[in-house]
Amino acid sequence: MKAAQRALAEGILFTDEYQLTMAQLYFRAGIHEKPAQFEHFFRSYPDYGAHQAGFCINAGLQWLLDWMEEARFRDEDIACLRSQKGRTGRPLFAEDFLRWLAGRRPMDFLTIRAIPEGRVVHPNVPLTVVEGPLAMAQLLETPLLNFLNFQTLIATKAARVRESCGVQVVLEFGLRRGPERGSNAGARAALIGGADFTSNVGISHVLGYPPKGTHAHSMVQAFIALGASELDAFRAFAEVYPDDCILLVDTINTLESGVPNAIKVFEELRRKGHEPVGIRLDSGDLAYLSIQAAKMLDEAGFPNTTIVLSSNLDELVIWQIITQIRDEAPRYGVDPERLIRRLTYGVGTRLITSHGHSALDGVYKLVAVRNRAGWEPAIKISETPDKTLNPGEKRVWRIYDRRGKATADLLSLADEDPRSAPRLLLHHPSDPERWRVLTRDEISGIESLLVDILVEGKLVYELPTLEEIRALRRADVERLDAGVKRLVNPHIYHVSLSEGLWNLKQELIQAARQKARQEQRNSPAP
Amino acid sequence: MKAAQRALAEGILFTDEYQLTMAQLYFRAGIHEKPAQFEHFFRSYPDYGAHQAGFCINAGLQWLLDWMEEARFRDEDIACLRSQKGRTGRPLFAEDFLRWLAGRRPMDFLTIRAIPEGRVVHPNVPLTVVEGPLAMAQLLETPLLNFLNFQTLIATKAARVRESCGVQVVLEFGLRRGPERGSNAGARAALIGGADFTSNVGISHVLGYPPKGTHAHSMVQAFIALGASELDAFRAFAEVYPDDCILLVDTINTLESGVPNAIKVFEELRRKGHEPVGIRLDSGDLAYLSIQAAKMLDEAGFPNTTIVLSSNLDELVIWQIITQIRDEAPRYGVDPERLIRRLTYGVGTRLITSHGHSALDGVYKLVAVRNRAGWEPAIKISETPDKTLNPGEKRVWRIYDRRGKATADLLSLADEDPRSAPRLLLHHPSDPERWRVLTRDEISGIESLLVDILVEGKLVYELPTLEEIRALRRADVERLDAGVKRLVNPHIYHVSLSEGLWNLKQELIQAARQKARQEQRNSPAP
Repeated sequence: MKAAQRALAEGILFTDEYQLTMAQLYFRAGIHEKPAQFEHFFRSYPDYGAHQAGFCINAGLQWLLDWMEEARFRDEDIACLRSQKGRTGRPLFAEDFLRWLAGRRPMDFLTIRAIPEGRVVHPNVPLTVVEGPLAMAQLLETPLLNFLNFQTLIATKAARVRESCGVQVVLEFGLRRGPERGSNAGARAALIGGADFTSNVGISHVLGYPPKGTHAHSMVQAFIALGASELDAFRAFAEVYPDDCILLVDTINTLESGVPNAIKVFEELRRKGHEPVGIRLDSGDLAYLSIQAAKMLDEAGFPNTTIVLSSNLDELVIWQIITQIRDEAPRYGVDPERLIRRLTYGVGTRLITSHGHSALDGVYKLVAVRNRAGWEPAIKISETPDKTLNPGEKRVWRIYDRRGKATADLLSLADEDPRSAPRLLLHHPSDPERWRVLTRDEISGIESLLVDILVEGKLVYELPTLEEIRALRRADVERLDAGVKRLVNPHIYHVSLSEGLWNLKQELIQAARQKARQEQRNSPAP
Repeated sequence: MKAAQRALAEGILFTDEYQLTMAQLYFRAGIHEKPAQFEHFFRSYPDYGAHQAGFCINAGLQWLLDWMEEARFRDEDIACLRSQKGRTGRPLFAEDFLRWLAGRRPMDFLTIRAIPEGRVVHPNVPLTVVEGPLAMAQLLETPLLNFLNFQTLIATKAARVRESCGVQVVLEFGLRRGPERGSNAGARAALIGGADFTSNVGISHVLGYPPKGTHAHSMVQAFIALGASELDAFRAFAEVYPDDCILLVDTINTLESGVPNAIKVFEELRRKGHEPVGIRLDSGDLAYLSIQAAKMLDEAGFPNTTIVLSSNLDELVIWQIITQIRDEAPRYGVDPERLIRRLTYGVGTRLITSHGHSALDGVYKLVAVRNRAGWEPAIKISETPDKTLNPGEKRVWRIYDRRGKATADLLSLADEDPRSAPRLLLHHPSDPERWRVLTRDEISGIESLLVDILVEGKLVYELPTLEEIRALRRADVERLDAGVKRLVNPHIYHVSLSEGLWNLKQELIQAARQKARQEQRNSPAP
């Protein structure tokens, strides 16, 4: 795609066709400016097959807002819509509708409340609430889901990788196998979720993080093809980067060639007054090789050099490597904890594609429409009770237990405030037999999670820096119970309904069933 | 990201840091302008877990070329590199190197041969061969892999979906859960691989395909929340789109409410002289519901209406639906083949994320460097013989058997031409015990697959239209043996080495081993 094409494909038409056909229908029915409220939430944690997430990290909001700021119906966009024909060859979109769209920027009409980026989030909790004229709020559905689903997916995976490797440095390496330009969003989300740096140069500069990387096998190969050797290649690298020298040691043979050659070069560097940084292992049994390499580096007098690991890493592989090091290192006289503290992890493909679960099931549902009488809650009843919508305008609360750990997220009606209640009744979202009572003395804090972002198009939120977002993530993960953070079989965090919301939901379900029965009675037998 | 940030993150710095540190090293070592040849290939077919691909569809080249045309080291890019510091706080990139980069557009220096988009491709076959000054060809690695890996992955998934549903229309619906802006590349790749249309509006207009879509559940919900009914919503839709009326029938209850209401509206449409198009089913047992809906539509006099299916479809789910329809439809007096012919498939998340295998393992390897004596083949030996590189400058041939079916891809040296050989010896790429001989009368054709694309930056290739690319795909898939196309346990297609290439590879492996042994003898005992 060339630049002009990208402007078309990434602008206001970065959406699904049916958003536009529905918008025209609303326009024609005269309800396009009815105030409506949509909620964005996801239904389930990523399930990677062998393991599952017990929490997610919210991400993507700022890039959605950036998109919204630029996305308007330009003349070029209107011309495209004007060219669309129905089956009979007549224009699909009428001129009066196109006139209404022309020049319009959906953002100007919308009010958004959202849970900030970086925060721990759970299924069925409204992460983003969009309020505005029905047609405009509807049009936002696809881009909103696109921007928020993907970054939340990747931030979540990154948080798992972060959990698996403690405080060690994590590098995002996924650009080469990431999803085209979406890889930039993936790199940002990885940084939010737990990566410390990325190899992706452009996005690093955009976000203000130094990009990381040293050299590839091809450098060693090029020297060999030109009649030189691995050692020559390492020397050349050390000469150019004497204070930033990390050498990739597995092009020929890690322990017989790569590490001994690296040590030679490190000794030369030190003689010249420079301190080598480390080595990188990119193939083979990484736990075994890192033990052996650590031993060789220790014995050669380089006990503080870093060992960077890469090669299809993810949270389980890292967990396995650490476990294996703890088991095996003592046998070789290597202190496992010291070795683990010198590791850095380069995590590529499996992070940027959320290996094992490559899409978050975020949805965007109409929850209320404003009538003369006020907000009318909307419901969608599913034959699967878990999928029946939580109706109406809501607030979201996080409840902390006596230890200061998050114990539940509570969805309430807009006019309920659990902070003033003497005790809290937490309803299971669909099972009437399951509830929980919390008394005041069991609660150390109740926090409102949704923050005002846009008010009728005006940004009322001070966008946090990426470092602030990362700090939110760290603080929230810290306040999770250990069981929720387990990589395998995590404890299920409670997302509950307040008494008011539970009652409203039951009333609406009853009313809808009654209406359906009436309509069936009224319709002629088939 | 705002527009200016995107220019930075999606331009020449859309690459990995180590490409730049290596480029500076080559510059410093004085080998940055040595002519080098890199090959791009993937190592294995996608393996989706329960099922595996037996072929891939090549895609992404045109968008890579579009990127290359725009990607140059602008002042803003150089300023970013200039700002990078090493550990001691000194600039990482020296001014002379930055001067050399400044204003440079890698494309201007590169020659590319490639297998055209849309063609069936297999592991270890060079899909793209890049030749040019070492530093420039090296810099291209990351963006090339990014653009080609992802589209090939998605085109391959789409070809499988296409196989599963015969000639029926396939719609790409994945934008909302696709990988951010990469979703546009995914939509294009889906069209190349087998989708007929996409719901993504912008990319449809860029590519010249009408976007497809009708309405969502939210439209029905909005009408209900405003005190109207599903039937009212359907009527409103039919009024605005009388000749393009496809109704989503599962908001309330598919068979008790949605389909009967749709039939009412269809009857009203017909009375007004319009022919309804069909219904869409988006939840539940799609095979069962489509049989019942077909029966109801047939009985109501709408036997030609389309039934669009969506909801987590992929090739296996579609295969299951078709199988179930064949089994169950007769029991309800519905002709299964007629029903299958009226189906349209909306395939979303699982296509755009290549569900089950979300990254192609494409690599970019140095295969030759030009010395005074000519091209010097480069090799990288792996302890896994399958991963040892096929060295040197090569050609790629596809051999067709007597039936006109592709029977093998043959990699040969640049100066070998199998078309003139009386018989062909096809070597397994790594196992000396496995080979195959083809005599002339067993061969109906031998085709050279690599095409000249760029010659020193000049485009010498007439870029095909998307429709031409789709035609290439159809023709190539047609010429695959049925066994290779199986969704489960496909037959393994042969990718073989010519005698010349096999011999060169063995010589280089021997020489490298001998050199390694010598170097070990020369180095002091540890």
